Amino acid sequence: MSPCVLTSSLAIGKAYDATVRWIAGRDPGAGEEVMPVVSECDDSGLNDVLSFPLADEDVAAALDGAVDGDVSEGCVGAGTGMQCFDLKGGIGTASRVLPAEDGAYTVGALVLTNFGSRPDLRIDGVRVGEQLTDLMPIDHHEGSCVVVVATDAPLLPHQLRRVAQRAGMGLARTGSTASNGSGEQMLAFSTANRISIKTADPVVDLRAVADARAGEPRLLGELFAATIEATEEAVVNALFAAETTVGRDGNTLYSMPPERVLPMMQRAGRLVPR
Amino acid sequence: MSPCVLTSSLAIGKAYDATVRWIAGRDPGAGEEVMPVVSECDDSGLNDVLSFPLADEDVAAALDGAVDGDVSEGCVGAGTGMQCFDLKGGIGTASRVLPAEDGAYTVGALVLTNFGSRPDLRIDGVRVGEQLTDLMPIDHHEGSCVVVVATDAPLLPHQLRRVAQRAGMGLARTGSTASNGSGEQMLAFSTANRISIKTADPVVDLRAVADARAGEPRLLGELFAATIEATEEAVVNALFAAETTVGRDGNTLYSMPPERVLPMMQRAGRLVPR
Amino acid sequence: MSPCVLTSSLAIGKAYDATVRWIAGRDPGAGEEVMPVVSECDDSGLNDVLSFPLADEDVAAALDGAVDGDVSEGCVGAGTGMQCFDLKGGIGTASRVLPAEDGAYTVGALVLTNFGSRPDLRIDGVRVGEQLTDLMPIDHHEGSCVVVVATDAPLLPHQLRRVAQRAGMGLARTGSTASNGSGEQMLAFSTANRISIKTADPVVDLRAVADARAGEPRLLGELFAATIEATEEAVVNALFAAETTVGRDGNTLYSMPPERVLPMMQRAGRLVPR
Amino acid sequence: MSPCVLTSSLAIGKAYDATVRWIAGRDPGAGEEVMPVVSECDDSGLNDVLSFPLADEDVAAALDGAVDGDVSEGCVGAGTGMQCFDLKGGIGTASRVLPAEDGAYTVGALVLTNFGSRPDLRIDGVRVGEQLTDLMPIDHHEGSCVVVVATDAPLLPHQLRRVAQRAGMGLARTGSTASNGSGEQMLAFSTANRISIKTADPVVDLRAVADARAGEPRLLGELFAATIEATEEAVVNALFAAETTVGRDGNTLYSMPPERVLPMMQRAGRLVPR
Repeated sequence: MSPCVLTSSLAIGKAYDATVRWIAGRDPGAGEEVMPVVSECDDSGLNDVLSFPLADEDVAAALDGAVDGDVSEGCVGAGTGMQCFDLKGGIGTASRVLPAEDGAYTVGALVLTNFGSRPDLRIDGVRVGEQLTDLMPIDHHEGSCVVVVATDAPLLPHQLRRVAQRAGMGLARTGSTASNGSGEQMLAFSTANRISIKTADPVVDLRAVADARAGEPRLLGELFAATIEATEEAVVNALFAAETTVGRDGNTLYSMPPERVLPMMQRAGRLVPR
Repeated sequence: MSPCVLTSSLAIGKAYDATVRWIAGRDPGAGEEVMPVVSECDDSGLNDVLSFPLADEDVAAALDGAVDGDVSEGCVGAGTGMQCFDLKGGIGTASRVLPAEDGAYTVGALVLTNFGSRPDLRIDGVRVGEQLTDLMPIDHHEGSCVVVVATDAPLLPHQLRRVAQRAGMGLARTGSTASNGSGEQMLAFSTANRISIKTADPVVDLRAVADARAGEPRLLGELFAATIEATEEAVVNALFAAETTVGRDGNTLYSMPPERVLPMMQRAGRLVPR
Repeated sequence: MSPCVLTSSLAIGKAYDATVRWIAGRDPGAGEEVMPVVSECDDSGLNDVLSFPLADEDVAAALDGAVDGDVSEGCVGAGTGMQCFDLKGGIGTASRVLPAEDGAYTVGALVLTNFGSRPDLRIDGVRVGEQLTDLMPIDHHEGSCVVVVATDAPLLPHQLRRVAQRAGMGLARTGSTASNGSGEQMLAFSTANRISIKTADPVVDLRAVADARAGEPRLLGELFAATIEATEEAVVNALFAAETTVGRDGNTLYSMPPERVLPMMQRAGRLVPR
Repeated sequence: MSPCVLTSSLAIGKAYDATVRWIAGRDPGAGEEVMPVVSECDDSGLNDVLSFPLADEDVAAALDGAVDGDVSEGCVGAGTGMQCFDLKGGIGTASRVLPAEDGAYTVGALVLTNFGSRPDLRIDGVRVGEQLTDLMPIDHHEGSCVVVVATDAPLLPHQLRRVAQRAGMGLARTGSTASNGSGEQMLAFSTANRISIKTADPVVDLRAVADARAGEPRLLGELFAATIEATEEAVVNALFAAETTVGRDGNTLYSMPPERVLPMMQRAGRLVPR
């Protein structure tokens, strides 16, 4: 099991190297077979990337701090300098749990947002972006989006590929157009079928499978729907969690103003007043 | 240039064969090199498919009738027996024209809908499906969706592949989850760069290209956005155009009731009252 | 379980339609869910394709005749009009059986050859084509190649995709360059993991898998090697089995002359004299 | 234009980071948009990878040394610790020039070999590996292979993808089976169509293309064949150039003995005696 690390575009080399050294430091025998997954978005709008601010210690601290429990959202880690529909974005996360009769599996999505043009922003279908014409950055930095989908459903590799594709459908619902320079990257993994790297890609005789879940035709479809929902919500959560950030050269990304957005949601019937 | 034909799943052989014969009948010399594109959705909920209702004459009539002008929508052609979010669907179409400064290119989408579960239906972001709990068919037939995207922008093959992928993002906005048994198929083609089959896949020295549009970084992104919008609208148009249809064994798909849907849109602020 | 049918390019519609009707005639209840796989190569060099020679009865006879036992090779079925390195080709087949300690699984490859330029032909690495400069057709018809790989190893979908890709490596060893107009199509399927279409794409908990073969790291690699070998041999078998054929307009494809080729093999040390 | 860097698996982070800093040091304004391509094979059989031997200075020296002229082969750079069919491998390179009437374009392939099982090795079709049963390493380390294909033919992105796939066919001819743990990576690029990153993925109206080469149906096929040939030869060149290497823990990979291999080639008729 190797870590999945998100960072700034020009820092992926450093992040990869620091992660490998961190693994090797903990388990000197395992190192050569553990290759981490490192992905990135370009935060050079706020981040003075050519000062190479990431240090080995930052990566080690992040890995040491990755423990069970709540996931921080907004301007944390790789999310510190990222945008979202020309507002401040960053890390967002959300999950869905299937009904008990479908195995009570969980699907969680974590997004690193760095995509979107303001007028396209929709929250739960409501055209929020069209109504937020101010709070714009000096420059629109077209970016990308990383989505990591995790599930405890015992999915096979070809099924995880299909799950990852559905994450893009969740982004579409928020207003993403997967624009030209935007490199959407989706990764999906299952925590159930942990296979030793020594036996990579095992051959399985399904006739010997006793699991009652096998052959449940509805299950995969429900996992797809859960993936789309969780991804959409994760983007929204990133927007609500992020805070106005001033970066290099005074460049500023403003946080989404909830006091203006929530009434929009309410007027559209998507928020019940308390 | 070969036709693109849509039909019922079990009829694709007949449709292909009839199309080839139709081509050969018109141009005896060209036939062997012209291979049509034939795609399908499964309309066996309404269609008595094992009676093999499609005849060569039906295909020839459709091809003869494919002339410039308005495109029929709803329960026409392959759309006759298809569903959409458990309502009657079929053929829908919509298009977008880019601004003059971006070449005034057109992007058109034609959909053959056969997908969707009622509660998931959104129209322009409004949760219409959740509010339409009646008018349900006896059985939910999970289907697929075909999207054909045409443009007069001179796109290259790898760019058309990207355009086709964006059509799926348009479906996502209507509520598609690309469910397990659903085989979404997207095809994108350009009417500009017509290349003889004799010179298939020409090698191009871009240094010799004089077109001012080349290198217009914004253009591809605008075509992506136009594709998503046109696809989303085409699905909605299919729903509005289709009529309640009684098929085999009395199976019925009801048309979407505009007198109930339009007020929903209005309440959500997505429709200006006249 | 649906048939896999190979035919001439312009006949795939007819072949598909006839196969569907054949299935429906045998099992009136099953028809609408069984979609055959039909593939093709272009044999218009010999075949007067615009006379549409294929009839429903031909397809039904082929399907009725598909019984256990030896597979016919050479100029049979779809192979009747196909070329191979500018010689007469057609259907070829070969198989490999893994050692008992690897499960004694079988991998079989069936090829429909229609590819290759004469000088590129190698048999078991020997440059046979360079030494066969005569027996050329009037025109070189660049074609394609279909490879169908079947195994009783219980492979999963993503593994079968990898197997199919290896078939192309077998073609490479015979001298294929996958040339520009050549549309190589590979299909791999397992006869072990038969899944009802009702439960398409089952979710499997590998922790519940009792099969001792699961996690055999060497197995997949051996299946890959077997696929490459069987595909390479199948092409050679097609060449040896095919007979000189005179087609439309007197066009002729000559059979490979074994009395000239075998000595070439012997001189290169690849054939032990009896 | 960004460098393409090859290294040892665990060193790709370091190599990436050092390359980015090297670029930034030369052109402070360009850095944030230039992302290098870094690829790797696992040389942990000879390389004490957990000592992290690669330093920033090594990468900078390699980049400074990348000048026009002959390319070093064998145990150089990333090739220092790599195997090839259980012999010492490493870097190999070869090229082909098309005839003048096809534009006199060049195709060059550079391989970083780390793949192959001894018995599978073929050189120009001759089963050399079967006859070299000694000189084996203590352990077979199944690896991978990186192939970088460069051409001055003005190929478009979708065509370069096809070229890259053909590189795998060249590997197949040397005896590669693309085994289970082997991650073959092919990259193809054109030096002709240099597009500014500011105008990424330009839209091109082929009607405006004046280049006489456009529409040359034979050209792409010839580039495919040249790619396969150059890749196959590059692997052989790596074998002939590499020298016996003793690595960590005394692990040894032996060089291929030309005094034994050349007579094999001669006996098979693939080498004319001087």
